[in-house]
Amino acid sequence: MSGKAKIWTAALVVIGDEILSGRTQDKNVAQVATWLNEQGIRLAEVRIVPDDKRRIAGTVNELRAAHDYLFTTGGIGPTHDDITVDAIAEAFNVAVVIHPDARAILEDYYRDRPGGLNEARLRMARVPEGAELIPNPTSGAPGVKIGNVYMMAGVPHIASSMLEALTGKLEGGRPIVSVTVGARAAESEVADLLRETEESHPGVAIGSYPFFKDGKYGANFVIRSEDGELARETGNDLSKRLRDAGYEPVEGGI
Amino acid sequence: MSGKAKIWTAALVVIGDEILSGRTQDKNVAQVATWLNEQGIRLAEVRIVPDDKRRIAGTVNELRAAHDYLFTTGGIGPTHDDITVDAIAEAFNVAVVIHPDARAILEDYYRDRPGGLNEARLRMARVPEGAELIPNPTSGAPGVKIGNVYMMAGVPHIASSMLEALTGKLEGGRPIVSVTVGARAAESEVADLLRETEESHPGVAIGSYPFFKDGKYGANFVIRSEDGELARETGNDLSKRLRDAGYEPVEGGI
Repeated sequence: MSGKAKIWTAALVVIGDEILSGRTQDKNVAQVATWLNEQGIRLAEVRIVPDDKRRIAGTVNELRAAHDYLFTTGGIGPTHDDITVDAIAEAFNVAVVIHPDARAILEDYYRDRPGGLNEARLRMARVPEGAELIPNPTSGAPGVKIGNVYMMAGVPHIASSMLEALTGKLEGGRPIVSVTVGARAAESEVADLLRETEESHPGVAIGSYPFFKDGKYGANFVIRSEDGELARETGNDLSKRLRDAGYEPVEGGI
Repeated sequence: MSGKAKIWTAALVVIGDEILSGRTQDKNVAQVATWLNEQGIRLAEVRIVPDDKRRIAGTVNELRAAHDYLFTTGGIGPTHDDITVDAIAEAFNVAVVIHPDARAILEDYYRDRPGGLNEARLRMARVPEGAELIPNPTSGAPGVKIGNVYMMAGVPHIASSMLEALTGKLEGGRPIVSVTVGARAAESEVADLLRETEESHPGVAIGSYPFFKDGKYGANFVIRSEDGELARETGNDLSKRLRDAGYEPVEGGI
């Protein structure tokens, strides 16, 4: 494969005062990142912004122009602090409308539930004019797609089911393959060895992730490449170099 | 207190391919956010960027101008992929130098450790010219401060000990007080009640965070304000309104 193949990139905007206040631990960055990589798309940037319509709209306009895809999580529920649809309609300079299919989904979902399809719930059928829906097999209210922007729920298991529904549907390149080799080494003892290994295998990047576990230092070295064969060869070479230097490599990581 | 009191803000740049690849779950956003709030500083924005010197420098220059403080996590270790100091020196247009106090700390720390202070470890004494050190009680190698930029370790327990060392040292305003009230209510059933409660108490923001637990829907409603008394009053009012509507409020949240 030519080194000039297109690299597909995405950005993610996490919308939520609850993340910026420290109250809630974000889980969506890791799951969106992992899923994107499986689609052959690289997560190139994440921004976490407050529940502020102008800030969301500005960030979305900047990032949707810079990347092939833009995902958002959060702010598409039924309450007054859910303003993602309004902000993105503003970014696209279109009106907010009720999507008839979304209304039908919600009518069906809430038919036998207490309260029925009240006004607050109907908010979840609002979309920027011209948008399509992203199925939500978990809890009815769909995600929303307009242009290259995908609006997903903030609740991680709902976001996950929306990603599931999108699997295989986005154009991408080759997934990045990663090979991990661990060792009970302080990374500062093997820094030269790592740099030399990376330099000997153009087309790979090696990251070093230290830890302290069971009273001992160690590190995992992660080799990443679009070329799976090259990543595996580099992993074998790194294991050999570690062994030659007196460390026992652990393939797959520690 | 006047409503015109200065609001102190900070941004955080998380540096790391390992977060963007989905391999590592970030823990620093939540801990930096919580700590900043205790200092009376609001975390206004987070960006997660790859290990790319130009991208880091550009992001740092944009955000250090927009906020009172800028924190970074990651990329200050001993290996070739640790490029935060170089990127931020570039952002400030200054040279990278060895800080004599950092060298002394590392000499002391590595004196009795295998390998001693080798060249890779000495990388951790490199700082942008004119920078000061942030103490690291956990593992020797210090954090670095230049201008309003604070560079911290990526390993969460080391970042935590650097925050500890900075506690009480940054100028800030009043911390935001949050009061949580939970209920076994689908948020879509109480959306109007929440909006009305927020509107009746200018100066508070109410967030709604749904969950599904033990087979039942519920939500926590978080009232946030710089005015603690106002937050508590609003909490009492919300509890009363929930009770009047037939829900049992749980003070402190579920």
